[in-house]
Parts: sequence; structure tokens; C-alpha cells
Amino acid sequence: MNKATIFTTISKYLAENRDQETREFCDSLHPMDLAAYLPSFPRKEQLRILEIIGSEIAADIVCRLDHDEQSQLSKAMPDRQLAEIMNHMPSDDRVDLFKRLPEDRGETVLGLMAKVEREDIRKLGSYAEGTAGAIMTSEYVTLTPDMTVQQALEKVRLEAPDKETIYTIYVIDAQRRLLGAVSLRNLITAKPAMHVHEIMQEKPVHVHAGEDQEEVARKLNKYDLLAIPVINGNEALAGIVTFDDVHDVMVEETTEDFHKMGGLGHKAPPGLASINMRDASFWMMFSKRIPWLLILVFMNIFSGAGIAYFEDTIEAVIALVFFLPLLIDSGGNAGSQAATLMVRALATGKAKLSDWFHLLGREVLVSAALGLSMGLAVSMIGIFRAGPEVAVVVAMTMVCTVLFGSVVGMSLPFILSKLRMDPATASAPLITSIADIGGVLIYFSIATFVLRDMIAAAG
Amino acid sequence: MNKATIFTTISKYLAENRDQETREFCDSLHPMDLAAYLPSFPRKEQLRILEIIGSEIAADIVCRLDHDEQSQLSKAMPDRQLAEIMNHMPSDDRVDLFKRLPEDRGETVLGLMAKVEREDIRKLGSYAEGTAGAIMTSEYVTLTPDMTVQQALEKVRLEAPDKETIYTIYVIDAQRRLLGAVSLRNLITAKPAMHVHEIMQEKPVHVHAGEDQEEVARKLNKYDLLAIPVINGNEALAGIVTFDDVHDVMVEETTEDFHKMGGLGHKAPPGLASINMRDASFWMMFSKRIPWLLILVFMNIFSGAGIAYFEDTIEAVIALVFFLPLLIDSGGNAGSQAATLMVRALATGKAKLSDWFHLLGREVLVSAALGLSMGLAVSMIGIFRAGPEVAVVVAMTMVCTVLFGSVVGMSLPFILSKLRMDPATASAPLITSIADIGGVLIYFSIATFVLRDMIAAAG
Repeated sequence: MNKATIFTTISKYLAENRDQETREFCDSLHPMDLAAYLPSFPRKEQLRILEIIGSEIAADIVCRLDHDEQSQLSKAMPDRQLAEIMNHMPSDDRVDLFKRLPEDRGETVLGLMAKVEREDIRKLGSYAEGTAGAIMTSEYVTLTPDMTVQQALEKVRLEAPDKETIYTIYVIDAQRRLLGAVSLRNLITAKPAMHVHEIMQEKPVHVHAGEDQEEVARKLNKYDLLAIPVINGNEALAGIVTFDDVHDVMVEETTEDFHKMGGLGHKAPPGLASINMRDASFWMMFSKRIPWLLILVFMNIFSGAGIAYFEDTIEAVIALVFFLPLLIDSGGNAGSQAATLMVRALATGKAKLSDWFHLLGREVLVSAALGLSMGLAVSMIGIFRAGPEVAVVVAMTMVCTVLFGSVVGMSLPFILSKLRMDPATASAPLITSIADIGGVLIYFSIATFVLRDMIAAAG
Repeated sequence: MNKATIFTTISKYLAENRDQETREFCDSLHPMDLAAYLPSFPRKEQLRILEIIGSEIAADIVCRLDHDEQSQLSKAMPDRQLAEIMNHMPSDDRVDLFKRLPEDRGETVLGLMAKVEREDIRKLGSYAEGTAGAIMTSEYVTLTPDMTVQQALEKVRLEAPDKETIYTIYVIDAQRRLLGAVSLRNLITAKPAMHVHEIMQEKPVHVHAGEDQEEVARKLNKYDLLAIPVINGNEALAGIVTFDDVHDVMVEETTEDFHKMGGLGHKAPPGLASINMRDASFWMMFSKRIPWLLILVFMNIFSGAGIAYFEDTIEAVIALVFFLPLLIDSGGNAGSQAATLMVRALATGKAKLSDWFHLLGREVLVSAALGLSMGLAVSMIGIFRAGPEVAVVVAMTMVCTVLFGSVVGMSLPFILSKLRMDPATASAPLITSIADIGGVLIYFSIATFVLRDMIAAAG
């Protein structure tokens, strides 16, 4: 069944008020697919569909929508419908949506919600954006260490319908301190009369509520966990983060790294990482791009000043200008490569801060070889275009600028990291601009020295 | 306990042949941590540790090592020890390691392995690199539709120790055709007398063995699955791919995208994405970087030719050269930004091919605004440095080059995608070089026209 058929079928049922058939038809679709089709309907029909399928399934659908789509939909939704749907949403998605509601709307909807859910929102809502606390959910199963396996399984069975995961279960004491973790796998294979403390894994890997969400992702992935427990200041279990939420965090963080590498470093306005490119506004795009472009413009003025300083050299041998873009770009290109390799290696843990010195040594060797190869290629053209003297200058410059650009490109991510800044700030455009300034100075210094007789003759 | 303490403790036990204590101490560590410490030991002690902890735990440790580390370790390992460890590895990791063994070594080890595992390697090994078949595992639980829930749970319990996941269970018919999926959650909450076909989800989301691993990752993430079933040409269930393997695929594919964007486009040599940056050889780094650098050198020669064509203009107004790096870089920077946004949006599904026309319209508006802002900023300096005429030329050029660079940067990923090439090939260095050629022509054309009186006076 394709998208068009689904759309016309539902539209027809809705138009004829055949609610029963609408519900049955929607139930037959995968919730993810229904969520994908929902935005194609007019807003009013979207609300009717969500009403017909019932708030439990509606909550599942709403969770799967874009943040942007969610906000617009909830804006159009009556307070009571929104409160009912939010009652049924997983706690992490619910607090996310709540935070994006206008303040007074949020309070109104909160007033209509059940007490447990209301308090849950208040609790989860108190954690700062980007921390473990902000992405955790409170729907997990807990056990006490003295329960038998049989009692534990009974509790899991009872609570399963309301929990985000039941595959990792946490063992706590009376003060909710985290004692251990049990996988459902271990629970169903253990003897029924055994005690939970006998089969639990003690001191499970965990994170603190204030820890960065990237750290949560790193730990969960490193240990191949389905979920990771989050503990608060009192060492009490406060929530868990599941692998699918970590996936979303990773995608967003990677997009941020990409954007930074592309010279879109400033975080304002956020959200560009997660919304559809189609829907980004003119202003959002402009304000995301202009800061770095202006910074780079002012950096490039140094290249101009460098050139101005060598005006006499250029006037004497105008052919030097032909090779200017080539030489400064080559330094920038080699530098961008080096920076990209390092930024990604630092992000994925394939390089550590302590590797710098070792890597620097290799980078010098590699970039010297790269520069030599490129210098050789370009000196052929140099001879043909501007004579052997200029060719020598161009080839020598090539080696030096590629070396300079590469060392800068390789080192900058490390330096930024050391300064506790994001290494991805060492973007290709930034490296290019730094390499330009270096390239201009190297090029015309070499030229002024090697071609001193030609310059003297011209002057 | 820190790394140094762990290292000295194990070393001491080994030196004193206290195998029992070594084993107990290793057992007390998280396997992931033991895997992280293992490479710090001399090769001979690594082998002893793996022998002492027994091939079952050793298999778990070996799986968690880098590919590179795995290969070196298995090279040093006696055939029988390797065969025993491989017997206990999950089938997907095992076939991965097998493929990286030298051919005759692989055959020797295969001969020492149990029959079931040997056949499994043959089967999984037949799928091409980068497909669903190549990353799937054959360790999952299957049920038949007429089993009762009680029987099903009994089967799951029995088979659990040998399976990679028991949380999603697959229902097949006598021809192994995939009929449905049951989550362990549903299984333990269902009434024991019910039948599997009553609670299974029919037609579960699945992939074909030949499908690209990126598609596997996309589907699994879209539907938030723990595992996705893989079916072969006969529609029979051939294996499953679990979320943690998909995570590795994603990291690798993202690294590849990063590298391409940084102008490291050529795939040869592969492996740079997954090995430690520390261990990459000189030759690996050189051969990864040189192809694009040389391509870009030759592209830049066009910029040089463009400049040569305008030699008279430059000779008449040498101050034009001061602004050359600034203007061509600005076009490249704006273009890199646009390309980065599009490449990432296409990769994450936040932009579609069909959005091009709409996005192109917005890009023209945004980049015109960017160019105007930058032109305004730079014209101040232009007046001060080189007089009002040159300032006008510089400002006009800024608007045009930023517009040109942005439109190229935005469109190229779409064009590449349309041509079924990877959009990430539209790297920052490539866009910079294209923007340079355009920038040179735009700049000196405008200058030649606006400054025609000055040029005539000089000539």
C-alpha cells in the first residue's frame, strides 16, 4: 500500500464519519508509518485522527513526530486532548514537549494532567538541556535485592505495560540507591527460588544526572548497553536513558560537529540540527552563517596586508599572482584534511590528547611528502608559464605551505580540545584562512629572496 | 582502581604463575575494561591471559578489541587456541575476524573448529562487504506459530545462553520463511496457554541480505528496533542484525562522510575510519590524502589561467591583488557552509532530492544577504586601502562570489546524489576550488569594466 492510497482511504473514512473504520485502518499501520503520513493531512483532520485512535496510540504517534511538527500540532490541539495524550507519552518525550509549550499553556495543560505525571514533569523538567537528566525517562522497573527471582518476574510482568524497557532492571535499596542491575535474560534463565542479589551485576555502569549527554552516549555505546541508569546527587536512582534516545543524541551531536567543520560554528539559533532543512527560515539560515563568515573576512584582511607589504615584488614579477590561489589553497586543502581526520578521531575516541606529539611527527613526514608530490606536479606548469626561476619559487612554496597548513590543521583540534573548546571549531574555512595568511607570507618571502635580481632589475 | 594498578596486579600474578588469582581478578573486571587494558601487555602475556580466563570469556574480550588489534593478536596465537576462541565468538564477529585471516591460516583454523561453527562461517562469509548479510549474526531464537506461550518461553530459556539477543524472537514456518516477530516483553506478559501466532506481530520490518548496511541502520533506527531480521533470496530468515552492530556501522559511515567532506574522498585504503589514528601508517595517510590534493592542484590551475588573462588589469591596479584571497575565500567559505548543511541534511533525511528547487530559491536570498553584509564590511577597508573605485569593485565582487559559491555549494550535493554518487564528495576543498575559479573571473571582469579609465590611463 503506498502513501497516496493510505491518504485517500483515511480521508474518505473521515469525510464520511466512519470512525470505526478509521480506527481499524490506522491500527493496521505501523505507528512509525502513521506518524510519517500524519503531517500530510490538514491540521483539523490530524486532530480528528488522533482523537479517533485514542489517546494511548495517539501518544505513541505524537512521540514519533518531528519536534517542529509536535509543537505546531499541540498549538492547534484543545487543552484537554493535549493533556490526555501527554498523560500517555513516555516521560522523556513528555517533558521535552512540555518544555517547548508556551509557559501559560504549559501550566494550563499541567493542571489537567494526572498528579503522578504532573510531578514527573516537574522533576524531569528541572535538569539542564544537554545533560543526562534532561534525556532520561522514569519508566523502568526496580527490584529489591531480597526478592526471589519468581517474585521479581511477577513484578516485571505486572509493570511491563507502562515501562519503556523491561530488559534491564535495576536493584535499589530503601533509599533508592543503585545496588545492581539484572537483565531480563538472566532473570528468566535463573532458578525461581534464587534471590535477586545472587544474580544481579553489582555496581553497574551508570552516569550522573548532570553529566553531558555525549558522555551518556559514549558510555552506553562502549559497554553495548540497552539502557544506562542515571543517579542524582544523593546517589539515588533518578532515571534511565535507553539506546534509542542515545541514538537521537548521537545524530544531533554529529550534525553539530559537521556544521562546525563546515564553518557554521556558532550555536545560535539551535534547532537547525534537528529540523527539516526545508522548514529552516531565512533568518535562521542567515544568522547561523553570518558570524563565521564575518570573522573569516576580517582574518583574510591579514592576507591582504601581507600582499600589500610585498607590492614591489609583485609589480616586478606579475606572473607570481597566477600561482597565488593555487598555493594558498593547497595549504588550506592539506590543512582541512588533517583537521578533519583529527576532529573525527577525537570525537570517536580513535585519537587521544596524549597522542599529539606522536601524531605531529608523522604529520610532518606525511605533509612533507604531500608537498613534494604537489610541488613536483606544479613546477612543470611553472616552468612552462613563467620560466624556471618562478617554477623553483612555486615548488618550494608548495612544500612549505602544505607543511604549514597540515601542521596547523592537525594541531588546532588538539589545542582547542586542551582549552576545553570543541575541536570541531577547527573548521575547514578557519584552517583555510590561517593557511592563506601563512601561505602569502611564505610565498612572497621566498619569491623576494630567490628573485632578488629580477626585482632589482625591475625597480 | 586505575589502569596502572590493574596492569601491575595482573603482571605480578602472571610472573608468579598464580593462574587462579589471575582468573579471579580478570573476572572481577568488566569485559570491556579488560579488553581496553589487554593491548598494554606484551604479546606473550596477552596470550597467557586469554588462555587463563578460558576460551568463552576470551572470545568476549577478543570481540571487543579493535580490528587491527584482533588481527595482530590472532597472528601470534597458536591455531588451536584461535579455533577455540572463535568457536565461542558471536557469529558476526567471528566471520569478520575469519575474513581478515590470511587464506591458508583461515583454512587451518577452520579445520580445527566445530562443524556447526565451520558451516556458519562459510554461510555468513559469502555475503559482500557492506551488505546486511555481512553484518548479520545467526544467533537468535526462532519459534513456530502453533507453539503455546509456555512452550515458547521454555525454548527461549533453554537457548538463551547461546543467543546474541532473546528480546526479539522470530516466528518462522517449515521453510524458514519469516512469519512474524514476538518481543520477550509480549511473551512474558501473555497468558501461558495462548499461541504464538495470536501474539506475534505479523510482517515485521525486515531487510534483504543484499541490502546496503546503511539501509539496515536507517530502518532499525527509524523503527527503534533492538534487532532487525534479514531474509535471503528465498524469503527465508537468514540472520538478524542487532542495534549495537548498527551503531558501529553508523559511526563508520559517518566517519566516511566526514572524511569525504574534508577532501579525503577516495576510499583507498579503507580501514582508516575504524583504526586508531595513532596506528595509521605513513603510507596509509599519504595515499588517502594525495589523490584529492592533486586533483585540486590541477583545478586551481584554471584560477591561475584566469588571472593570467587579466594581467593588464592587475598591472594597472596592483591594489586589486590585496583583495584576491579575501574575495575568493569568501565565496569558498559560504559555499562550504551551504554544502555542509546539504550533505548532512541529505544523510539524515532532513532534506530530500525533491526539495532542491525550493531550497535553491531560499539559498539565493540568504546568500545575497550574506554577500551584502560581507561586502558592506569589506568596502570600509577597501576605501581606506585603495580608494572608492576599488572599494566598489570589491563590494560588488563580494556579493557575486558569495552568491556563486553558495549556489554551487548547495547544488553540488544534490547533483551528485542525482548521479548516484555520494553527496559528501562535494567537499569543502572541492567547493573552495570551484568558487576560486568563479571568483577570479567575476572579480577581474568587474574590475576591468568599472576601472576601465584607470586601466586605459596606465596602459
